[in-house]
Amino acid sequence: MHAGIDLPGELKSVRAALEAGLVRVTRRFDEQLSCDLPPVRDLCEHVERYRGKMLRPTLVLLCGLASTREQGEAALTDDHVTLAAVCEMVHMATLVHDDVLDEADTRRRGATVNRLRGNEAAVILGDYLIAAAFHLCSQAGSQEPSLVVGRASMDMAAGELLQLHRREDYSIDEATYFEIVRRKTGALIAAACRLGALASEASPGVCEALDAFGRALGVAFQIQDDLLDLTGRQGVVGKNVGKDAEKGKLTLPVIHHLAECSVRQRAESLSILLRLASGESAGEQLVQALSATGSLVHARQVAVRLVREAADCLSALPDTPARTMLEIMAQSAVDRAF
Amino acid sequence: MHAGIDLPGELKSVRAALEAGLVRVTRRFDEQLSCDLPPVRDLCEHVERYRGKMLRPTLVLLCGLASTREQGEAALTDDHVTLAAVCEMVHMATLVHDDVLDEADTRRRGATVNRLRGNEAAVILGDYLIAAAFHLCSQAGSQEPSLVVGRASMDMAAGELLQLHRREDYSIDEATYFEIVRRKTGALIAAACRLGALASEASPGVCEALDAFGRALGVAFQIQDDLLDLTGRQGVVGKNVGKDAEKGKLTLPVIHHLAECSVRQRAESLSILLRLASGESAGEQLVQALSATGSLVHARQVAVRLVREAADCLSALPDTPARTMLEIMAQSAVDRAF
Repeated sequence: MHAGIDLPGELKSVRAALEAGLVRVTRRFDEQLSCDLPPVRDLCEHVERYRGKMLRPTLVLLCGLASTREQGEAALTDDHVTLAAVCEMVHMATLVHDDVLDEADTRRRGATVNRLRGNEAAVILGDYLIAAAFHLCSQAGSQEPSLVVGRASMDMAAGELLQLHRREDYSIDEATYFEIVRRKTGALIAAACRLGALASEASPGVCEALDAFGRALGVAFQIQDDLLDLTGRQGVVGKNVGKDAEKGKLTLPVIHHLAECSVRQRAESLSILLRLASGESAGEQLVQALSATGSLVHARQVAVRLVREAADCLSALPDTPARTMLEIMAQSAVDRAF
Repeated sequence: MHAGIDLPGELKSVRAALEAGLVRVTRRFDEQLSCDLPPVRDLCEHVERYRGKMLRPTLVLLCGLASTREQGEAALTDDHVTLAAVCEMVHMATLVHDDVLDEADTRRRGATVNRLRGNEAAVILGDYLIAAAFHLCSQAGSQEPSLVVGRASMDMAAGELLQLHRREDYSIDEATYFEIVRRKTGALIAAACRLGALASEASPGVCEALDAFGRALGVAFQIQDDLLDLTGRQGVVGKNVGKDAEKGKLTLPVIHHLAECSVRQRAESLSILLRLASGESAGEQLVQALSATGSLVHARQVAVRLVREAADCLSALPDTPARTMLEIMAQSAVDRAF
């Protein structure tokens, strides 16, 4: 996420610390997944190729740096590295299981585990990753991180179950949307930020502030994903456009549109959504309808407001280059095109 | 498991302590799964109906009692109850995911989650249960139980992946079979026994002895399951007979048979196995073939030997009624018809 951003001079040392930290995280991640059984090892090596933006480990490290006056790589302890690897592993487990649920064939331009080895291998591999994450987390200096990761994982699953329960329910309101997204996407990002602070032995106030920062950022991130699903180009986002509607998942722009449009337009839009859900291509018409009610603009505004709220949470922290970097990351969550 | 056995007088107080302990375990289990979201609550209530023999929580409590000279319910601490609930929750998670993998329609004479709510809900519900188990485990008095449960869960998944990798591989040997079963079934039962000892603050030697007891018992238990799959009556075991061969899973009697029979018989037996794997009914012929090479008797002998090994591990413990009860439980693992 931090890569490719043109940084002012004083931030270059933060970036260097982050990059060195992420090398340690990757090593710990790979070590934890090593297994004496070759078929398990092969599957884990496949999953390592899923590694993308490393958003969650980056947040653990950056929040760790932002919670202490000491800067540079030396401020990143063994616990920061461990907990960053834990967050990435939990995230990977959800990707592997999501691909089973979505019957996805590709991820990061490679074949998914379910495609290559079948749903059974993918379900069990996801379980292996979750177990490995908790086992690694239990090696941290205290029990607090395990409680945080356990609670976040429960929240994520509960959010997914709620989303599944309301799938193809076109009467969903914004409150329910936020309930789902705060858990499904917000919980682990909030946990990543809190874990960084915990590993820096930050005060409860700083831990709370970074948790709130992560939760708001996570929801903004999800809304940007919703928008990219509708307006992104396939080559850039690396997945088909309009997938959410195909799966019967209502996103913020669609929920806003259905609440704001005329009764007549609503009938028309529901027919577009049903066509998409049954596999027909009607993405263009959906985007046109959403534009007419200003629903894409609305979603964008909500995401921008959440990023501002996230940035406000950071005022509890000392003014360090790491804090500035967190502000830049939050902003880039809604500026990204992938 | 302990219910229905006619017990000598001095064991009645152990049974009373166990029964009171299991009531606390059930309460803790239900409390941990409570959720403010109704769709999550409904699914958890469904899963609570899966509760069966409570083998793992019983072992946690009984090993807890067997690791201390103090007897009776007062010897069972909060940690014993917590860790017993954790083991049952991890076990439930694997049942829910196994039912997805096996496309099972019924469990304990009720519909499975995947049957009622679809594979997606079942996969995510399993994830919720695993997360809840780890979250609960992190509330124990030390980090050691989380390490034990994390490692056992990794082992279980690795064993399942190995089994999947060798499915329909009719050249599998006994060593590979034991490699799979020690992890898939043995790991969590060994962990349950170790956790009981840990919660009683037992010496490392006692923890090791009970771990080894549980591992041997778990493998014996699995072999008995293998045998019941071939010879049990549907009404008693509550599932179809011959399922393992249908799923391409090689069990100990079949592996022994293929290694021992004549070349000509081998061709015949492989054809029976392939017919079963393709959904034809050939269970009777398989059982006849296995009987001819004494393979059912062989498997039974291995299970009996493992139970004896398990009982030998208990000599490290003080002579208490709880230890006697563990010996009775081990014996009943290979005497049961369900």
